[in-house]
Amino acid sequence: MNNQPYAIGVDIGGTSTKYGVVNRLGKIAYKGSIPTNQYPTAEEFVEALHCALQPIINEIGIDQIKGIGIGAPNGNYYTGTVDYAPNLPWNKVVPLVDLVSGISNLPCWLTNDANAAAMGEMMYGAARGMKDFIVITLGTGVGSGIVNNGQLVYGHDGFAGELGHTIARRGRKHWSTGYDGSLETYVSATGIALTAKIFLETWTKPSLLRGYKEEEITSKLICECALQGDELAQHVFDYTGEILGEALSNFVMFSSPEAVILFGGVIKAGDLLMKPVKEHMERNLLPIFQNKVKLLFSELKEADAAILGASALVWEGKMSLSNLKQEKLIQ
Amino acid sequence: MNNQPYAIGVDIGGTSTKYGVVNRLGKIAYKGSIPTNQYPTAEEFVEALHCALQPIINEIGIDQIKGIGIGAPNGNYYTGTVDYAPNLPWNKVVPLVDLVSGISNLPCWLTNDANAAAMGEMMYGAARGMKDFIVITLGTGVGSGIVNNGQLVYGHDGFAGELGHTIARRGRKHWSTGYDGSLETYVSATGIALTAKIFLETWTKPSLLRGYKEEEITSKLICECALQGDELAQHVFDYTGEILGEALSNFVMFSSPEAVILFGGVIKAGDLLMKPVKEHMERNLLPIFQNKVKLLFSELKEADAAILGASALVWEGKMSLSNLKQEKLIQ
Repeated sequence: MNNQPYAIGVDIGGTSTKYGVVNRLGKIAYKGSIPTNQYPTAEEFVEALHCALQPIINEIGIDQIKGIGIGAPNGNYYTGTVDYAPNLPWNKVVPLVDLVSGISNLPCWLTNDANAAAMGEMMYGAARGMKDFIVITLGTGVGSGIVNNGQLVYGHDGFAGELGHTIARRGRKHWSTGYDGSLETYVSATGIALTAKIFLETWTKPSLLRGYKEEEITSKLICECALQGDELAQHVFDYTGEILGEALSNFVMFSSPEAVILFGGVIKAGDLLMKPVKEHMERNLLPIFQNKVKLLFSELKEADAAILGASALVWEGKMSLSNLKQEKLIQ
Repeated sequence: MNNQPYAIGVDIGGTSTKYGVVNRLGKIAYKGSIPTNQYPTAEEFVEALHCALQPIINEIGIDQIKGIGIGAPNGNYYTGTVDYAPNLPWNKVVPLVDLVSGISNLPCWLTNDANAAAMGEMMYGAARGMKDFIVITLGTGVGSGIVNNGQLVYGHDGFAGELGHTIARRGRKHWSTGYDGSLETYVSATGIALTAKIFLETWTKPSLLRGYKEEEITSKLICECALQGDELAQHVFDYTGEILGEALSNFVMFSSPEAVILFGGVIKAGDLLMKPVKEHMERNLLPIFQNKVKLLFSELKEADAAILGASALVWEGKMSLSNLKQEKLIQ
């Protein structure tokens, strides 16, 4: 493996955990996955992950592996713990960094999955060269990673960037949190499907969506129907784009990013989503912000982005350590 | 003046411009002001400011003055310009840093007035020792200064932190921007007075406020009436607190600050405002954020805060320069 340094990136999802061994240029040399939900305790999960990684680490040589970066729902950069992640099997505070570094003898960093995506975009994706941007992940839920002046925004406790839970528009309760009107309730894949079902109740004209059972109506199906010219399905995306665009204008007036990068399954809708989002974002921005913010789709393959971003935590962490050493040298 | 270093802080307001000569501990050694709106051009204003400062600079000795920090509406840290500030007499892009440093031969820094207040709070006020906080200025308008990881959030263009213009609740047009539902429309002194006038139209019970002409109804008067037990006036503050609290919960879920610090004339309402703000902020926060964020009133004398904050730009700027030098030394 020609002596170059590598970082391991791990993306823990509710169903499966993907990992990759990545070089500094973002090339993934090895890739694999283990199921997340087959291990009743975090300890057993970490041991399974270790067993999967061990042969690769041995082949490359542990000296060339600079560390392990992990992205996980509710992963906290400061504490190194995963706190009560609703989609993971361990419903408690899990000291993941301690567990992984303990078993692997490698330095380990943790952040939440959306922050990992933002790191991936900054180092290898649409945000290359940018110091101020926001990544919004539009999947089953809505996450966000915010970068300000080249740094991930963690806040005082590591929990910053829960933009999916900001109040967007009253009148729809969140299926899991119970809060009224959060952004996720409307613009996640789940929210988009819900919008279609609600619209169908009062829609008097024909629609392709009527040919499907309620449980078959997904954001993917709505997208397909919209592309076939279905008026109701298009109306669903206009409505989704209006709410997302309005929310983005508020986020822009908070941190004035160079770009907002949309990421995740929902962006497959393309212009169906992008057009109304852009229109409503611009409409609600003060003139000093108008026509300045780039609204982009992620350029990274979704499956790779979180692995790349998680691995980037290692290079970032290494840089901070070397900066610390330099600071000590000059004191 | 016992050889200690000083910074000059300048606070440019629509009517008057206040300045002070401040030591590193935040003690204001000299204070004064000139009118802002009596000089038709920015050049004439800067010359008048220079004439006012010159005797003080001479007395202290220019070698002991480390620079001039300026807070001004629409002041941009990156460009050193004041861009189309609606309340200032010069309706264009004014290269204020160039003008002031040109005439004074001192290094000069500029930021907007709310950012200056945030700097003042961080160095000398309620945010001492904090690295993550948000200052909301509640005056005629609503401004904000956001500090993340010890740094003011400027965004990619220097315009970050326009929280007063984020959309809070539809249904009320802004008197100046024309936008529907911005936070400033409800929670500024102007917005609070407007709420009272709107409530009076449909209020059927008696109220002390009925004894006043429309133009006499100010947020200060509403506060006095509320303290005397007037139900309508109290209702106005409950409503204001609900909208501000809900907006704060969104800001907290964005950047997870240690504290939100309220600043400006409106905070004289004390618990009348603080109680409903806290209640509605907590109610809309995800559990991971609840009961963690300190909601504080500014501890600085309002007249001094902007001067102190503007002067702090000088120490901050000096630190950046010396950091740069150190970085060069170790390369």
